[in-house]
Amino acid sequence: MIDPWGSTTLDYEKLIEQFGIKPFADFIGEVESPNHLMTRGIIFGHRDYGRIVKALREKNPFAVVSGMMPSGKMHIGHKMIVDQLIWYQKKGADIYIPIADMESYSARSIDFETSKELAISEYITNYIALGLDLENKNTSTYLQSENKTVGNLAYKLAKKVTFNEMKAIYGFHGSTNIAHLYVPLIQVADILHPQLEGCGGPKPSVVPVGPDQDPHIRLTRDIAERFKSQFKFIPPSSTYHRFITGLTGDKMSSSKPNSAIFLSDSPETAEKKVKSAKTGGKDSLDEQRKYGGIPEVCTVYELLLYHLEPSGKKLTELYESCKNGNIMCGECKKNVAEMMKDFLIHFSKKRENSKKTAQKILEREPKC
Amino acid sequence: MIDPWGSTTLDYEKLIEQFGIKPFADFIGEVESPNHLMTRGIIFGHRDYGRIVKALREKNPFAVVSGMMPSGKMHIGHKMIVDQLIWYQKKGADIYIPIADMESYSARSIDFETSKELAISEYITNYIALGLDLENKNTSTYLQSENKTVGNLAYKLAKKVTFNEMKAIYGFHGSTNIAHLYVPLIQVADILHPQLEGCGGPKPSVVPVGPDQDPHIRLTRDIAERFKSQFKFIPPSSTYHRFITGLTGDKMSSSKPNSAIFLSDSPETAEKKVKSAKTGGKDSLDEQRKYGGIPEVCTVYELLLYHLEPSGKKLTELYESCKNGNIMCGECKKNVAEMMKDFLIHFSKKRENSKKTAQKILEREPKC
Repeated sequence: MIDPWGSTTLDYEKLIEQFGIKPFADFIGEVESPNHLMTRGIIFGHRDYGRIVKALREKNPFAVVSGMMPSGKMHIGHKMIVDQLIWYQKKGADIYIPIADMESYSARSIDFETSKELAISEYITNYIALGLDLENKNTSTYLQSENKTVGNLAYKLAKKVTFNEMKAIYGFHGSTNIAHLYVPLIQVADILHPQLEGCGGPKPSVVPVGPDQDPHIRLTRDIAERFKSQFKFIPPSSTYHRFITGLTGDKMSSSKPNSAIFLSDSPETAEKKVKSAKTGGKDSLDEQRKYGGIPEVCTVYELLLYHLEPSGKKLTELYESCKNGNIMCGECKKNVAEMMKDFLIHFSKKRENSKKTAQKILEREPKC
Repeated sequence: MIDPWGSTTLDYEKLIEQFGIKPFADFIGEVESPNHLMTRGIIFGHRDYGRIVKALREKNPFAVVSGMMPSGKMHIGHKMIVDQLIWYQKKGADIYIPIADMESYSARSIDFETSKELAISEYITNYIALGLDLENKNTSTYLQSENKTVGNLAYKLAKKVTFNEMKAIYGFHGSTNIAHLYVPLIQVADILHPQLEGCGGPKPSVVPVGPDQDPHIRLTRDIAERFKSQFKFIPPSSTYHRFITGLTGDKMSSSKPNSAIFLSDSPETAEKKVKSAKTGGKDSLDEQRKYGGIPEVCTVYELLLYHLEPSGKKLTELYESCKNGNIMCGECKKNVAEMMKDFLIHFSKKRENSKKTAQKILEREPKC
């Protein structure tokens, strides 16, 4: 069977079996004009997405919560989350984007002022340039440290969570500092606060995350249950996406510049990076013509799959050409490098144009 | 040796020896027009009060921080802290009065709304009626849950405090909930935030407390040291006051109505309570005439000492009359009951007049 969406970096099926995450494929037929990340199996799993499908179908209000942690430069892998937000925004969802300055402080020792500057100059600017309308009245972007509703909710929720529970989930111990120990509750409140009465709740909500965030989703859903009678919380739904593989073959990471294409990379730098990326090619051209390449382990193919090739048909054709040995890595890389270069040429212009708007986003009052 | 200020309920000397609290008597000569609680030894100890003496003498700015935890009715014992604040206000200090609604929530399960109402209708009304000017521009009364500066400072400070430390100080364990575990940091921030640059700091500050609060003062001073280079904190000074004995001979407590005279008691109720209070009288009048009474264990005498008798001379005379067997408990009780009744007749009028102002105090923006 052909699986043009495969990836070997993480064993996603295992996650589904062991932790009760359900396959997203179950719902794909029920979602109107699904996002390419859904149809291509990049969004592979979910919890309780049925509620969101229902809200979408019946045009009922629902919220999407997706935080950003300002701690470096955004790379092409981060684009995936923005693409999802754009899709949800078009569907009429309320969108909440907490900027995790409190987490940056405890996890990375970045002070609030630096976080704010970084959030504006890098993340917010990129989000806008990628096409998300942060000025939309149903969209709220806020700094955790500036949102009193979230801060107070976190504290209220903290009353029904013990140190032992946090220890079991996050591996805390006696020498863990109290900020580190407390901040997960802030994130829980980020997720649950759109459901407060003052924010127009309760209503279904969904958190699009990577599978590494699932322990956090489980804690949030547990806490939502514990406060059900007080706040009428609906346990938040979640979706899980695969991670794009780094160009070097392991994780794409901001701390390994060669593994990632940064949104701020010059088109030429990006071009070079694509051209030296790890592919699924064979040792010799002869061998590859005979046995075909392996797109499932090709990081260049993944760039197309995740981001650069809008047409599913073309992607499948390329996949088959590669498998059948009809296209060699050199040619393919050249094409993709060109596409990446084009993307960045256009993107850098949009980025310039977004800067002014980005400066104003955090001056807006939090939605609730 | 005559000690007209003695109390046998707590062994205050031991506190001084064991924990490094210094005797307040060391400074009494250096304080201009000292408060009667100072001269009568009710304020018995301090840490670093030299800084405050210096600020008073040189008319330099300093801050006083004294929280209120809205969790019931105020009794006459609580008046002592207000008397100190009035004294400091006259001396020109910046006064900060955090309302511990976050603590009430975690310790007593009182929600923020109830705390706010109780703070206004009971505590703030009484503070004003007792003579504290809460509208003074140098005085800031705020709800912890509403003060973002305090909330953010607490979180920043929490980074240099571990679970093990909190466990050692407060006896926390694995099943302690996270709100309970976190809230001491809010109190630390209450105490330290007047020293932030944005609040006009750094400057000396003093926290008048009962000796039971000393572990908390020590933690705050420790944390101030840890953040010295970042915030230029001056470790806060503190003073320690004795607790007035309950009318039943043990602790005066809001949960034991017969032990306490509430500020909201009717003059007649208070009169009755004084008349049935525990004294230091002997078993028979004959015996008492012969051997004298023991004012040191007399709760009626304490009412005069702490609150009702402004003249030190008269108090000493009464003390000696009692010791010498010249005055019997019946007569003494009658006088004191009358004084208490008069106090409450006047106070209840002031209380009525304070209600309107009390409603407005929390509408003021926190000072920083």
